[in-house]
Amino acid sequence: MARSGQRRHKRRRLYRIQRRTRPGAAPGTVAVDPHAHSTAVHLFGYGPDGYVEEKDVSPERVVECLATWPITWVNVEGLADAAVLRRLADIFRLHPLVREDVVNVHQRPKVEAYDDQLFIVARMVSIGAQSDEVENEQLSIVLGESFVVTFQDRPGDVLDPVRERIRAGTPVRRSGPDHLAYALVDAVVDHYFPVLESYGERIEALEEEVTVRSDGATLARIHQVKRDLLLLRRAAWPQRDALAELSRDSLTLISASTRVYLRDCYDHCVQVIDLLESFREMATGLLEIHVSMLSNRLNEVMKVLTIFSTIFIPLTFITSLYGMNFDPNSSPWNMPELRWTYGYPGVLVLMVAVAAFTLGYIYRKGWIGRAADARPESSSSR
Amino acid sequence: MARSGQRRHKRRRLYRIQRRTRPGAAPGTVAVDPHAHSTAVHLFGYGPDGYVEEKDVSPERVVECLATWPITWVNVEGLADAAVLRRLADIFRLHPLVREDVVNVHQRPKVEAYDDQLFIVARMVSIGAQSDEVENEQLSIVLGESFVVTFQDRPGDVLDPVRERIRAGTPVRRSGPDHLAYALVDAVVDHYFPVLESYGERIEALEEEVTVRSDGATLARIHQVKRDLLLLRRAAWPQRDALAELSRDSLTLISASTRVYLRDCYDHCVQVIDLLESFREMATGLLEIHVSMLSNRLNEVMKVLTIFSTIFIPLTFITSLYGMNFDPNSSPWNMPELRWTYGYPGVLVLMVAVAAFTLGYIYRKGWIGRAADARPESSSSR
Amino acid sequence: MARSGQRRHKRRRLYRIQRRTRPGAAPGTVAVDPHAHSTAVHLFGYGPDGYVEEKDVSPERVVECLATWPITWVNVEGLADAAVLRRLADIFRLHPLVREDVVNVHQRPKVEAYDDQLFIVARMVSIGAQSDEVENEQLSIVLGESFVVTFQDRPGDVLDPVRERIRAGTPVRRSGPDHLAYALVDAVVDHYFPVLESYGERIEALEEEVTVRSDGATLARIHQVKRDLLLLRRAAWPQRDALAELSRDSLTLISASTRVYLRDCYDHCVQVIDLLESFREMATGLLEIHVSMLSNRLNEVMKVLTIFSTIFIPLTFITSLYGMNFDPNSSPWNMPELRWTYGYPGVLVLMVAVAAFTLGYIYRKGWIGRAADARPESSSSR
Amino acid sequence: MARSGQRRHKRRRLYRIQRRTRPGAAPGTVAVDPHAHSTAVHLFGYGPDGYVEEKDVSPERVVECLATWPITWVNVEGLADAAVLRRLADIFRLHPLVREDVVNVHQRPKVEAYDDQLFIVARMVSIGAQSDEVENEQLSIVLGESFVVTFQDRPGDVLDPVRERIRAGTPVRRSGPDHLAYALVDAVVDHYFPVLESYGERIEALEEEVTVRSDGATLARIHQVKRDLLLLRRAAWPQRDALAELSRDSLTLISASTRVYLRDCYDHCVQVIDLLESFREMATGLLEIHVSMLSNRLNEVMKVLTIFSTIFIPLTFITSLYGMNFDPNSSPWNMPELRWTYGYPGVLVLMVAVAAFTLGYIYRKGWIGRAADARPESSSSR
Amino acid sequence: MARSGQRRHKRRRLYRIQRRTRPGAAPGTVAVDPHAHSTAVHLFGYGPDGYVEEKDVSPERVVECLATWPITWVNVEGLADAAVLRRLADIFRLHPLVREDVVNVHQRPKVEAYDDQLFIVARMVSIGAQSDEVENEQLSIVLGESFVVTFQDRPGDVLDPVRERIRAGTPVRRSGPDHLAYALVDAVVDHYFPVLESYGERIEALEEEVTVRSDGATLARIHQVKRDLLLLRRAAWPQRDALAELSRDSLTLISASTRVYLRDCYDHCVQVIDLLESFREMATGLLEIHVSMLSNRLNEVMKVLTIFSTIFIPLTFITSLYGMNFDPNSSPWNMPELRWTYGYPGVLVLMVAVAAFTLGYIYRKGWIGRAADARPESSSSR
Repeated sequence: MARSGQRRHKRRRLYRIQRRTRPGAAPGTVAVDPHAHSTAVHLFGYGPDGYVEEKDVSPERVVECLATWPITWVNVEGLADAAVLRRLADIFRLHPLVREDVVNVHQRPKVEAYDDQLFIVARMVSIGAQSDEVENEQLSIVLGESFVVTFQDRPGDVLDPVRERIRAGTPVRRSGPDHLAYALVDAVVDHYFPVLESYGERIEALEEEVTVRSDGATLARIHQVKRDLLLLRRAAWPQRDALAELSRDSLTLISASTRVYLRDCYDHCVQVIDLLESFREMATGLLEIHVSMLSNRLNEVMKVLTIFSTIFIPLTFITSLYGMNFDPNSSPWNMPELRWTYGYPGVLVLMVAVAAFTLGYIYRKGWIGRAADARPESSSSR
Repeated sequence: MARSGQRRHKRRRLYRIQRRTRPGAAPGTVAVDPHAHSTAVHLFGYGPDGYVEEKDVSPERVVECLATWPITWVNVEGLADAAVLRRLADIFRLHPLVREDVVNVHQRPKVEAYDDQLFIVARMVSIGAQSDEVENEQLSIVLGESFVVTFQDRPGDVLDPVRERIRAGTPVRRSGPDHLAYALVDAVVDHYFPVLESYGERIEALEEEVTVRSDGATLARIHQVKRDLLLLRRAAWPQRDALAELSRDSLTLISASTRVYLRDCYDHCVQVIDLLESFREMATGLLEIHVSMLSNRLNEVMKVLTIFSTIFIPLTFITSLYGMNFDPNSSPWNMPELRWTYGYPGVLVLMVAVAAFTLGYIYRKGWIGRAADARPESSSSR
Repeated sequence: MARSGQRRHKRRRLYRIQRRTRPGAAPGTVAVDPHAHSTAVHLFGYGPDGYVEEKDVSPERVVECLATWPITWVNVEGLADAAVLRRLADIFRLHPLVREDVVNVHQRPKVEAYDDQLFIVARMVSIGAQSDEVENEQLSIVLGESFVVTFQDRPGDVLDPVRERIRAGTPVRRSGPDHLAYALVDAVVDHYFPVLESYGERIEALEEEVTVRSDGATLARIHQVKRDLLLLRRAAWPQRDALAELSRDSLTLISASTRVYLRDCYDHCVQVIDLLESFREMATGLLEIHVSMLSNRLNEVMKVLTIFSTIFIPLTFITSLYGMNFDPNSSPWNMPELRWTYGYPGVLVLMVAVAAFTLGYIYRKGWIGRAADARPESSSSR
Repeated sequence: MARSGQRRHKRRRLYRIQRRTRPGAAPGTVAVDPHAHSTAVHLFGYGPDGYVEEKDVSPERVVECLATWPITWVNVEGLADAAVLRRLADIFRLHPLVREDVVNVHQRPKVEAYDDQLFIVARMVSIGAQSDEVENEQLSIVLGESFVVTFQDRPGDVLDPVRERIRAGTPVRRSGPDHLAYALVDAVVDHYFPVLESYGERIEALEEEVTVRSDGATLARIHQVKRDLLLLRRAAWPQRDALAELSRDSLTLISASTRVYLRDCYDHCVQVIDLLESFREMATGLLEIHVSMLSNRLNEVMKVLTIFSTIFIPLTFITSLYGMNFDPNSSPWNMPELRWTYGYPGVLVLMVAVAAFTLGYIYRKGWIGRAADARPESSSSR
Repeated sequence: MARSGQRRHKRRRLYRIQRRTRPGAAPGTVAVDPHAHSTAVHLFGYGPDGYVEEKDVSPERVVECLATWPITWVNVEGLADAAVLRRLADIFRLHPLVREDVVNVHQRPKVEAYDDQLFIVARMVSIGAQSDEVENEQLSIVLGESFVVTFQDRPGDVLDPVRERIRAGTPVRRSGPDHLAYALVDAVVDHYFPVLESYGERIEALEEEVTVRSDGATLARIHQVKRDLLLLRRAAWPQRDALAELSRDSLTLISASTRVYLRDCYDHCVQVIDLLESFREMATGLLEIHVSMLSNRLNEVMKVLTIFSTIFIPLTFITSLYGMNFDPNSSPWNMPELRWTYGYPGVLVLMVAVAAFTLGYIYRKGWIGRAADARPESSSSR
């Protein structure tokens, strides 16, 4: 009961419809989600010569940083504080539609070009800590001339490697904000691989399970894998299109050298999709095997029933025949066999003969050998 | 009986062929539907500085309004009054084909450019009030230099948020009629989300139902969901194409700033389609599980029958054997067992042994443990 | 027998391969079909000011008419008379390939541009008068500077509305021959709708039938609907492509105003395809339900058998046990129960207990309630 | 045994991998097939004024002919003689890759443009003389300024109609070598129609068979048809692409007038594909019906079993009950019914009542009427 | 047990996720695989006039060779030695992304253009020596102005034919490095054919197996073939795209003459895909037949059970009836048949009559003839 309720709760999330503002509301409405996390603004200012990293700063500090450092990365975690969000949106002069999409965290991955800004939506995926279902979260990236602003609702560690790289002074420090945006998207795409690996292992386990023993629970697990892959797919395909747009288009904000890296990131995304589609096909194949195995087993069960029945039904008829109470005293025609000297042994011999004949018939049909073959423990591949 | 008739009636609507004029009739024929609602013309005149809202006006008042206000929105509800419709069509100089399509309320969503007008067809969807089937209605929009005319048959509340926005003096008042047309289409597209949400919940419920218990009624419900999604799909895909045409093409009537908003509306439409296709795939998956579950249960039923039969058939044969009436007086060979001191206990022991052996055989096949596993209440996922 | 032969005959038509000339024959060969109808040439000459309509004229009269009237429509019904066909082909200077295609009435819909002529092939569909299978016939249209020639094998009433419109002096009389060609194609496309309506009703009826009772005959009907829709599809898709070519291309013979009407006709054709594909998907869904229902019913049948068997098999074993003939005189161990005072009532009580236990087991499995649920009359959707 | 071996042999051909040269060998290697037929070179020289036809000529004669006649058609039958092939390749200055492809007779249909030559590969299909499986052979065509060279391994009659047309002095004699190449490809494409007709008839027969009676053999035949259509499809689709390339591209070797004819040939090829795809869908539909029919029949078989069992199991229990041997002398409670005056007739009446009740139950379930309906002979469509 | 573990191990490889570097790591990180083979550098220097071949050379020798010979081919086998790889990468000035991809041996086939280099990734496939599963390995090719560098992890013989051709002085020696790159890719593509041939044979064998006898093991084998083909497909499709890019694009490093050869190689790759897709469809068809055959056999088993039951159940009822112990002394109504003169023979005759009637009923249903038809040995195709 409790479990079922819990599962129900989880699923609701999966199918949550992806708009929170009232249908028909004016675009640009910033309607924060009542369940959103509280907002924290983190700051990175850097240039070829150094960097500054500050946590939990005020919007005013952001303005200062923009004036000081060649490149500023503002990372907003938690989307509950509408006032802070609106202040930041004003600082960076975000388009009304961007303001709306940032808090509406169910966007598909996409790229949108505004006058002097690029708005990139990516989706980060991960396997839930306690449950083992896939979770995905929106990362909104705004790329400007000298800054990158990112918005995400839940704090996470997907972007940590990028922070490391800024601190370590790798080439990212010597490149423009477009390279930082690339690094962020690349980190997101790279995080698909461990998630996929986990599904690859599940499919492998199910493959073993489905041939050895498979019941309703196996079926439910296959179904869950298919559903999760469907969800991943809905995130990965538009991600690929967004990357194609980023690396192909003559977007002035993206330099030629970064474009080469984006092309590489696009390749990784194609790999992700490739694996996803293969896994989906494997999962569909598993379903087919499951159904076929059920059919196999039904055949086996019915063979056993039929073998027992066809052997004993005629025998029982014979015994039943000689259990009739026809009165030998009324007529010599009434069951004289019962009074023969060798009547009983004769009937026993007859029954053995009938049973032998039936067994022979069944054997020639190949059911006895077959029945053994179809036993699951021998259904191993070569 | 009554129910079935009623359902039949509803379905007929679904498959109604979408042309009412006689095949081959001259184009531009305005053939009003005998079941259409009576016509009412509502008026909105507005500009940056104010607005006027009038209900149930005459065509002449429309002409006045056109001359007075920068932008006029005429909303026609009910398509039964051919005379009024023709008068309006003359006022706005509608193309014969537009006149035909406006009353022929089974058009696919589309955009058509005429000399100085754009004709936009959109489909509004909703869940029926009493039934829970999806309904969809045509909204025809004609966009001119200084006016927007909308036609719909049944009065509805989909466009209310747009009216609110005009009254509230939001940016829509400061923009041209193209922005009003966008706001109308956007309101229509946004109304898909609650409908989809309802289907998401149904699929979720069916998912629960199909694993726990599923019968013919479950099957019928899955089928209905699939059919409704098919219907929604037929509305959503051309809507997307229409929006792509609106936002891409170099249509002079659409300003660049409105185009950005139309692109956003296009994105929402793609989200709708994305969800629709996922739901369709989920529904197909449900069917597969349903069939697989039926197979599972048949296996279980047959196992029970086979277990009972294989245990009792040999036993009954033995009892039947000693029910034969061979005459012990005729011959000492005739069933001497019946006269042994421990004949009866011996047979009882034999029968217990046979039953034990058969049970052991069945157990080794794994049917008894399996039969328990396959019980629906234990088929929960991990 | 007779029926089957008749059906066979009909089907052969469906799969008739669509070339009659010997493989490899020179192109332009006019090989009339031996089963073609006898040829009759009908004539319409018209202009803005009047029209003349003549039936069954000679080719010479056609030449006269061409010289007299601004626009001439020659309608050839029946393709048996090779001499007349050749004479007309010479009058209108038809390309060898057009001559071949006109009598080879199994072309796909297409548009071909020759120097100063357009060759349009369309397919008219209808539900056969006596049978209820779909029939389709070729309409070949040649559009020239001042004339339209149409060829069809069987006389039909699809084009009557166009004749009416010419007689009535509608705008068609004031337009060029391109508008006449459009009106003809439009009449053909419009005739798909009643045919589709008929299939919509059949699918609806099958939907009812498949959930209530479905047998081999239902299956055969679903299969027939699928096959007919496949046939319609093969006509409708290339029709759409042909219309796209007509309305898009810079064909000098089509005026801009006619192009608008062709675009409308294209929209109708897309609607036809839309419905067709939906119907095909519905029909496939019906098959799935049919199979699932069969499975449902098998489950129910097997449950009944299993319930009866599992209740009576143990009981019969008990009665059989006390039907054994062990001799009480030989030993006090031999079936003393038979001589107990309450032996018989005790056995009856035992049997009632066993039956109750088995019923309880079955009830806990949920088979008895289920069996009732699965009864077809209760499988109605909510 | 023998049959199976023979079939195996045939199939191997179907799946033969399509390269004979060692993987990685230098391109242009002319590796003749050891099973190829012996080479014979046939010659046609023609112009508007006359023609010469010679069989089995030497390469030197070909050189002479090239110098004499405006157009030369060299037809090489049998690809076993590497020396002759190499000599001809030198005469016509064939590209190394063409040399390789000509003897490697498993190419897909394609068109390749070399400096002053076009290389066309087409595949001729036919129904095997003794077997009824589809066979297909490669026809390689090289089109030059003043010649056409064709290569095929097995002598065949597909090209005979083209020879007839040259002899008959049809327009082909007045056109260039491009028209000859067209005529050859057209002859090949036209030969698909009789092959398809044969498959249409097979599908029709299977359609009859599958509804009346269908067993493993029917299944095998459906499978064979599907496999053969798959093979045809692999030949037809690239053929279409090749024709599209021939008729669309600005190939200087193809004149505008020939292009019109190639477009017609392309149309025929599309018709072939259209039919193929319809047939494939029909064959898939047949499989579905086959499986559904099996399910139908299983239902029927199980109904018969269940009806017999549910009627007789309770009756047999009753008779068995009164077959018990409780001793009436030991107690008045022991089976007093056996000593009632109307005991036996009463039991008979009871049994009739039980049987009637069971029959009534079964009838209400609709199994008896149904069982009759499901009889194959009544499964005819309306 | 051991087997299953081993199989598990193999599969893990199939699903290994294709990135080794930590998600989000800076691009260009050369992270060698701990399981990689030890590195060996082989050298080929050649020109039109001669060649030098050296095994296991140092990076410095490579520099010398580059200065001496017009064209240098460096083949690196084994990717374990990071220092050597980095040294070579510096010598050839490889882009950071190329460095990363070379050691990350799970790339999809692709072509990437850098300033003066082309980076080509191809995948070599082979059937594993001991197992019979498909294996595939990455071949990375860097094409420069005067050199080709290839990287592969495991030493293999796929490239041997190319070495032979260099030694033999074929045209490859007179062409540029682009022709060498082509020869390498061509060798890789050609190696797909023997692998496919092996799968063609397996499918053929399974086709035989599935119609004659098919059990769980057959199913597992079909599944394995499908999975392997899926893997091959994931290698072949991007290979095709890469070849299209190589032969189409205006890449300055590829000469026009080499482009012709690449187009040929592209054709071979299309052939590979063509076969792959056909095989996949065949394998899917096999699954359908397998399931259908199971259904066939279940029908047969159930028919046998039903025939036995329906014949003997009524007979046993009759015998059971006359086994009742109604007391003839109590009443003349009690079973007078038992005391008739011809009672017993009469009952025997009655039973024969009932059996004959039942057999007749079964025969008319067509089950007896059918049961014989459905025997697997007679299910041969015509």
